[in-house]
Amino acid sequence: MIRWRYIISITGILAIFLSVAMLFPLLYGFFIQDQSVQPLAYSALITFGGGAFLYRFFYIPHSNYLSHREGVAIVSFGWITIGFFGALPFYFGFENCTIVDAVFESVSGFTTTGASVLNDIEALPKGLLLWRSLIQWLGGMGIIVLSIAILPFLGVGGMQLYKAEIPSPVPDKLRPRIRDTAMVLWKVYVLLSLMQIFFLTLGGMNYFDSLCHTFTTMPTGGFSTKNASIGYFQSPYIETVIAVFMILAGINFSLHFLLLSGKISSFYKDSEVRFYFFLLTGLIACITLDVWKTVYPDLSDAFRYAFFQVASIMTTTGYATADYESWPATSQMILLLCMFIGACAGSTGGGIKCLRIFLYLKYCYKELFSLIHPHAVRHVKIGGNSVPEDVMRSVLGFIGLYIGLFATCSVLLAATGVDLLTAISATASAIGNIGPGLGSVGPAENYSHLPFLGKWILIWCMLIGRLEIYTLLILVLPEFWRK
Amino acid sequence: MIRWRYIISITGILAIFLSVAMLFPLLYGFFIQDQSVQPLAYSALITFGGGAFLYRFFYIPHSNYLSHREGVAIVSFGWITIGFFGALPFYFGFENCTIVDAVFESVSGFTTTGASVLNDIEALPKGLLLWRSLIQWLGGMGIIVLSIAILPFLGVGGMQLYKAEIPSPVPDKLRPRIRDTAMVLWKVYVLLSLMQIFFLTLGGMNYFDSLCHTFTTMPTGGFSTKNASIGYFQSPYIETVIAVFMILAGINFSLHFLLLSGKISSFYKDSEVRFYFFLLTGLIACITLDVWKTVYPDLSDAFRYAFFQVASIMTTTGYATADYESWPATSQMILLLCMFIGACAGSTGGGIKCLRIFLYLKYCYKELFSLIHPHAVRHVKIGGNSVPEDVMRSVLGFIGLYIGLFATCSVLLAATGVDLLTAISATASAIGNIGPGLGSVGPAENYSHLPFLGKWILIWCMLIGRLEIYTLLILVLPEFWRK
Repeated sequence: MIRWRYIISITGILAIFLSVAMLFPLLYGFFIQDQSVQPLAYSALITFGGGAFLYRFFYIPHSNYLSHREGVAIVSFGWITIGFFGALPFYFGFENCTIVDAVFESVSGFTTTGASVLNDIEALPKGLLLWRSLIQWLGGMGIIVLSIAILPFLGVGGMQLYKAEIPSPVPDKLRPRIRDTAMVLWKVYVLLSLMQIFFLTLGGMNYFDSLCHTFTTMPTGGFSTKNASIGYFQSPYIETVIAVFMILAGINFSLHFLLLSGKISSFYKDSEVRFYFFLLTGLIACITLDVWKTVYPDLSDAFRYAFFQVASIMTTTGYATADYESWPATSQMILLLCMFIGACAGSTGGGIKCLRIFLYLKYCYKELFSLIHPHAVRHVKIGGNSVPEDVMRSVLGFIGLYIGLFATCSVLLAATGVDLLTAISATASAIGNIGPGLGSVGPAENYSHLPFLGKWILIWCMLIGRLEIYTLLILVLPEFWRK
Repeated sequence: MIRWRYIISITGILAIFLSVAMLFPLLYGFFIQDQSVQPLAYSALITFGGGAFLYRFFYIPHSNYLSHREGVAIVSFGWITIGFFGALPFYFGFENCTIVDAVFESVSGFTTTGASVLNDIEALPKGLLLWRSLIQWLGGMGIIVLSIAILPFLGVGGMQLYKAEIPSPVPDKLRPRIRDTAMVLWKVYVLLSLMQIFFLTLGGMNYFDSLCHTFTTMPTGGFSTKNASIGYFQSPYIETVIAVFMILAGINFSLHFLLLSGKISSFYKDSEVRFYFFLLTGLIACITLDVWKTVYPDLSDAFRYAFFQVASIMTTTGYATADYESWPATSQMILLLCMFIGACAGSTGGGIKCLRIFLYLKYCYKELFSLIHPHAVRHVKIGGNSVPEDVMRSVLGFIGLYIGLFATCSVLLAATGVDLLTAISATASAIGNIGPGLGSVGPAENYSHLPFLGKWILIWCMLIGRLEIYTLLILVLPEFWRK
């Protein structure tokens, strides 16, 4: 039985928190006296009012225990509600803004995708720019908790592997454990963010841009305050800092926690992280060789741009320092593949995730091996332990579902009148929560020209991808709604 | 232990059979006095000589029993050997023919792909055209035996499901069973071919073209004797006959056998066939609606071209009656998806196959269901029976491997300098054994302009796809070569 009133009242609480978050850019806007005060004030009032209404009107006395289905419902409806309320400042603040554009920008923010419908970012009032960056940072906080503290208990797509990762004083009741785990991981998240701000300002970036870019790097979001994205700064130092923090943000946050607790060995012993660095290195090398001489005469330039762009796409951030659409087809194809691979599980990155790709490769090798020795029993192992059969099945099911969903949504997007390459890459980019794609949605373009329906399709792709597919897809099953 | 001498001597026998097959177009060329006599005569002699050498020189006394590994080795090396010997007539017969072009055309034939490097098919001597069609027909015979009689015993990609499908008087020894099963299925294949020739000549097609097109329809090959493919005939009757036989060729041949034995119910009770017709109907309807008014003013024309093109691509034949590259992006995207789906398992069609897609969809639904009821045990069922866990795992592994291979080969093909859309669709088309793709290898173009390395990549893609991936990929495992 799902306690709907309880779930609705919790989304009300989330909205109230959101309205509090709006005060931060509102105060900043008030302080520098810009155009963002009015839209942010209206939005904060409406969001607070809406949240308070949902909370008070639907409130029921409840126990702390959450069922599986209630967990799924809170996560899904919570993200959708926040996505809509978060769109209000854009709706009030942009000139001639349509509802779909505001929701697109907001969902792209909260899902840490970073796809934008804005043609001139630099013309926006700074308060709104701050809000645009802040929602990515908040979205990132949500994702860390989702992927490390909630999904493992719901058994989504092989995330059960992480069930026992973080020690917790409280036994297997969902809510208290979420709270404890969340607090630990958020400390790591805040600490890394502070470090990034420090390093960016050290490189001469102003405080506002440092803050905004940190807010969109740590959640692997990718919104920038500049039209030319990170390319604007023309600084190898800033590019390196951002690339390093993107790569850090793409690593499982419980590993960061272990690292900070002094357990350094657990970091470099982790199979997923090793695979992640192996892929990063290999793909950067491939692209460097591909763009060297064909695009950049200097090897150092080729490496510089390849390094940043692979880090940006594979961690699913989506910043740009180069228009990779002018690179040779191999590089574009590799970047398109990176969109599917994504970062590590338990990070703020999207995509299929390195862990699943790694397990899947081992699985395929095992299947080949079993053809030679049909009677040998061989388990897929990770870090010395056998991966349970049901986890392996979840992983395979997840990858299949991911590809299937990508294929279906590409067809739907193409049906709105978008060309083939744009349809394919925009869908891959949205489901993987990257940002830019290829074709007419490349790193030098944006999503404003897409048709109305196409934007809605991508909004749902971003949400489905961010919630690890199952969490949102489960809502369409009739079984879910049965008592 | 693999008896390599035995395996090489068997490929020698295959080559001798191939040289006998060359006599058929040779006699025809002699009869009509065309330019194909000399190249075919040379080729037959070399192939016979080579085959006889391999057979006599490597012959060892042997038992009839084949190990798993020997089965895999015979299938893989057999197909490769035949592909190379079959290229000789093209090498001798075409003007300025390079080795890679001849091998491309030959492998494209034997794997029933139908991708061509020839710019002007109609200019070829008729004897060579007949050979070009005949190798597809022979390839089709090989595939039926491979997929119904050999792969199920090797446990490749879930084909174990078919292990018990065809009754056989002989118990589980591989070779005698193959012979019996093969004879039964080849009778069906020949019977269907005779029927198609009859219906095509009835529609006014001349004997030569009827024979050639039957030779390339039944194996879902797609080589035509005309530059404009089936579009040349401008006849709705001929298009319908060919479409119907393509669809029939895309059905499991053991079902055709059961149908001819009077067991009609087993035909329409088969889950895969129902799913196959469901998909065909659905996708034809989608494309009809998409091209109606946008390309064809009449609904009847829209249906006519959509029907033929979906049947052609989904059965992986690759004939064309329309240049679908001028269709809207949705239709192109759907056809690209069809390349992955393919026809039924146990047919002459390629692709992932409907059975695996069907099982995979059921599996995903099961996974979603298990999120709601984590403790409920639910098996994937087909035709009322539970699918064994290991079969399900093979199927999932196969689909993943298929997609992974597609992604890798697309990158490699792009690296040869081919544009993105061409690289993606040509690889999908080659692994799925379809023929035409999109971009610069569309239905109105051919593969002659691809770079040297690109052609070799596609040659291996065609072989790997045709041999259900595992069979050829297994050869690169070190374990395979260990004693």
